[in-house]
Amino acid sequence: MAQKLDSASRSNLTQSLPQWTFSTERDAIFRSFRFSSFNKAFGFMTRVAMQAEKMDHHPEWLNVYNRVDVTLTTHDVDGLSELDVKMALFMDRIFAQ
Amino acid sequence: MAQKLDSASRSNLTQSLPQWTFSTERDAIFRSFRFSSFNKAFGFMTRVAMQAEKMDHHPEWLNVYNRVDVTLTTHDVDGLSELDVKMALFMDRIFAQ
Repeated sequence: MAQKLDSASRSNLTQSLPQWTFSTERDAIFRSFRFSSFNKAFGFMTRVAMQAEKMDHHPEWLNVYNRVDVTLTTHDVDGLSELDVKMALFMDRIFAQ
Repeated sequence: MAQKLDSASRSNLTQSLPQWTFSTERDAIFRSFRFSSFNKAFGFMTRVAMQAEKMDHHPEWLNVYNRVDVTLTTHDVDGLSELDVKMALFMDRIFAQ
């Protein structure tokens, strides 16, 4: 069962996830990914979708052509959990490839 | 090259696409699809993504777990075109399967 991130883990976020924006309003993190084509954007989404099923933790995401806007939060804890950090790191890693 | 829908085509929309909502603000159409799981929602998106590449016409869509909110409009004509109608009919057809 996921637990809400404690303050120590939160203060690490800016270091471990420098490209993500923290939203206090929703207790969520956000990143907009841009690709050179829809093909690449949807390829990224497909890799993330399989990881999401494996983790049983799913992003909220908006896709407009080559752009994928991702919001991560954990509904079960009504805020950020370690699952969001893990998912964000996974996305950063495959985006960088 | 796509052309903006004329008024005759527009008046047919409510009959051919009864599940879609027309937004005058953006000259776009909208439908929210709900599935029984993320797997099914993303499977739907994958089928649509391949069709979108084939048509070179891509949806704007937001996915939150089992929900896919779709907005269709044609950027080249700054409004609705026949491509949006074709894409909406394709989505309706595979959703019904």
